Amino acid sequence: MPRFSKAVSSLRSSEIRDLMTLASRPDIISFAGGMPGNDLFPVEAVEELYRRLDIKKKQAAFQYGPTPGLPSLLESLEGFLEKKGLPVKENRLLITTGSQQALNILGKAFIDPGEPVLVENPCFIGALSAFRSYEAELRGVPVDIDGISIEGLRQEISRNEKAKFLYITPYFHNPAGVLYTAERKNQLIATLQGTNIPLIEDDAYGDLYFFEGDQERLKPIKAINPDGINVCYTGSFSKILGPGLRLGWMLVPEKIYAKCELIKQSADACSPSFTQVLADAFIRSGQIYSYVASVRQEYKKRAAAMVAALREHLPSYVQWDEPRGGFYIWLTLPKGTDATRIVTLAIAGGAVFVVGKTFDPAGEQNNALRLSYCNNTPEQIAEGIPIVAQAIRAVCG
Amino acid sequence: MPRFSKAVSSLRSSEIRDLMTLASRPDIISFAGGMPGNDLFPVEAVEELYRRLDIKKKQAAFQYGPTPGLPSLLESLEGFLEKKGLPVKENRLLITTGSQQALNILGKAFIDPGEPVLVENPCFIGALSAFRSYEAELRGVPVDIDGISIEGLRQEISRNEKAKFLYITPYFHNPAGVLYTAERKNQLIATLQGTNIPLIEDDAYGDLYFFEGDQERLKPIKAINPDGINVCYTGSFSKILGPGLRLGWMLVPEKIYAKCELIKQSADACSPSFTQVLADAFIRSGQIYSYVASVRQEYKKRAAAMVAALREHLPSYVQWDEPRGGFYIWLTLPKGTDATRIVTLAIAGGAVFVVGKTFDPAGEQNNALRLSYCNNTPEQIAEGIPIVAQAIRAVCG
Repeated sequence: MPRFSKAVSSLRSSEIRDLMTLASRPDIISFAGGMPGNDLFPVEAVEELYRRLDIKKKQAAFQYGPTPGLPSLLESLEGFLEKKGLPVKENRLLITTGSQQALNILGKAFIDPGEPVLVENPCFIGALSAFRSYEAELRGVPVDIDGISIEGLRQEISRNEKAKFLYITPYFHNPAGVLYTAERKNQLIATLQGTNIPLIEDDAYGDLYFFEGDQERLKPIKAINPDGINVCYTGSFSKILGPGLRLGWMLVPEKIYAKCELIKQSADACSPSFTQVLADAFIRSGQIYSYVASVRQEYKKRAAAMVAALREHLPSYVQWDEPRGGFYIWLTLPKGTDATRIVTLAIAGGAVFVVGKTFDPAGEQNNALRLSYCNNTPEQIAEGIPIVAQAIRAVCG
Repeated sequence: MPRFSKAVSSLRSSEIRDLMTLASRPDIISFAGGMPGNDLFPVEAVEELYRRLDIKKKQAAFQYGPTPGLPSLLESLEGFLEKKGLPVKENRLLITTGSQQALNILGKAFIDPGEPVLVENPCFIGALSAFRSYEAELRGVPVDIDGISIEGLRQEISRNEKAKFLYITPYFHNPAGVLYTAERKNQLIATLQGTNIPLIEDDAYGDLYFFEGDQERLKPIKAINPDGINVCYTGSFSKILGPGLRLGWMLVPEKIYAKCELIKQSADACSPSFTQVLADAFIRSGQIYSYVASVRQEYKKRAAAMVAALREHLPSYVQWDEPRGGFYIWLTLPKGTDATRIVTLAIAGGAVFVVGKTFDPAGEQNNALRLSYCNNTPEQIAEGIPIVAQAIRAVCG
């Protein structure tokens, strides 16, 4: 037997993988995945944009590019991010192989084995897995409908003054669906100031808002640019073009960028040039704006279908909130409920979702579950939700 | 100032980056890069293959894929590797984001900080950087024209019985250009048997042979399938399709695969689906075979042009061997020579290459340099080599 590293033993075999296998079965309605609908991708638009590129650009798509990203994409993406008010000139932009890689690189830049890292509870599973792979001690802070608990955050900071960073997903949280309020963001900023704890702000879903009136809540903390906090802002093309391109980014202070570029170099040399050329053309054509506007409407429609079905079928003891954007609705079940029993019944009935403990930094709390509406038609939603509701009643009464 | 991890301090700012900036200047002839010529990519063939795919495949190109790789590419790539005699059925194949990621993942699977790892001296810089990023203690073993020094390897093994693995590039070594002899491979196998030291066999260049008669020397150790050695075989689409696709692979025993799949999941979730769809179509069309045959001839022509120019212009005290394939010629200069002085003069004259110490695991030995002929026409080579030769004479006399 080969002698493996200690770090590798901190990685858990993912239950998600088995769920995804189920999710791909045609006889099962899947509310499990966090992937955009296949029918929504701008396949023809991107093919036409590529066709029209000159031969030099097409050749560059086959070639290595600079580690930080193709200069043309860095420029067009800066324009895209500047429209959100992000301080692109005072920070450095690094193109990554999906925002999963951005989180992994930041994990490597900051975490030594056994060091504490603050995360939300529940928390995005890709972040948990990236930070676990560097043997972080994960400290979960509860999230409510307005955002991370400030009281909980203060407690964890006082217990872990040397926490390496705080990781949050304030804009249509995965899995909790929450959109932080402006007030909660300000309290968060005040709490972090003076602590020397950097903030990783993951904004993978912010473009998928359902209400124009939410603009202030959607303003990134990175765009507020608070004094004395190192904000590492991450984003992704996965939800606004396609995850199969494997393109994300981080916008970070220069001193953090310098470390991350070296880590990226040793990780995969550079992000795929081919898909960077496609993403660059998509931004420069302006089609990214009309495309995002159209998928926003589509996801809003799917969310409404799920809200209607949940209202009709769920027992009243299940707590949940209407989504204001993104992909997810988070159901909280009575204390002590084991969502694994519910998903087993639901699968037998023909529907699947992800259970709560998957998103718990401690891997325990299981009286919740995540429903995704992103990859289903309103008809599939209307058919699948009663199956979920029935399974809940069977377990919880 | 944020508190970075210890691991990140083991990464060195790469001199390669500055060289590459120079290498992209139109007034400088670059023998520095290890990239294929832009003029050689199968741009039109790949565009036509993509155009003909059905809409389901095109949608899948935009979507997340399974972490190990798209099933269709795993199948077609297995066919491609089986033709080399590789034991694809008794091992597991993992598609990676370039073979750089394969090396990084293997580094993470095996290395704890301070542990010894055996590498060739000189060694591929991407491997050095991946292994350094896990704080390995690198032990270099000299390479001669027939391959790694067996005496040197025995010494290092006796000094480092718990070495985590041996990493080699036996087929047109980067940077040394060496093709291992069959005898040397057998001696290597015999030396490793009974040690519990896995072998990482990097075969990024093996398809680019110049002589049909070299088939036995080109047979991977993984294909020989020696008893009692865990062989991790890595390869890449970079030299047989295009590095901008960022696709490589590892073929490894099941127990190693299981760890690597988890690491890959946390690193970037999956390799780019878009370029996997392209690579799959390229293999299935059979065009990969005719394409590789044609670039092989082109690189052979470029190598011949460099060999002719070196014969004409180099002083006799410079040692080098004619390449039998791949991208590189390695010049060994008199002991004590500082190749950095030579490259400074060469750049002033209008040519650039990479100095020896870049490839030394200890970062010191500098009486050598690497010339790449892959990205130059015979005319550029005829113009650039006299500049290199003149710089050598100016420093060494």
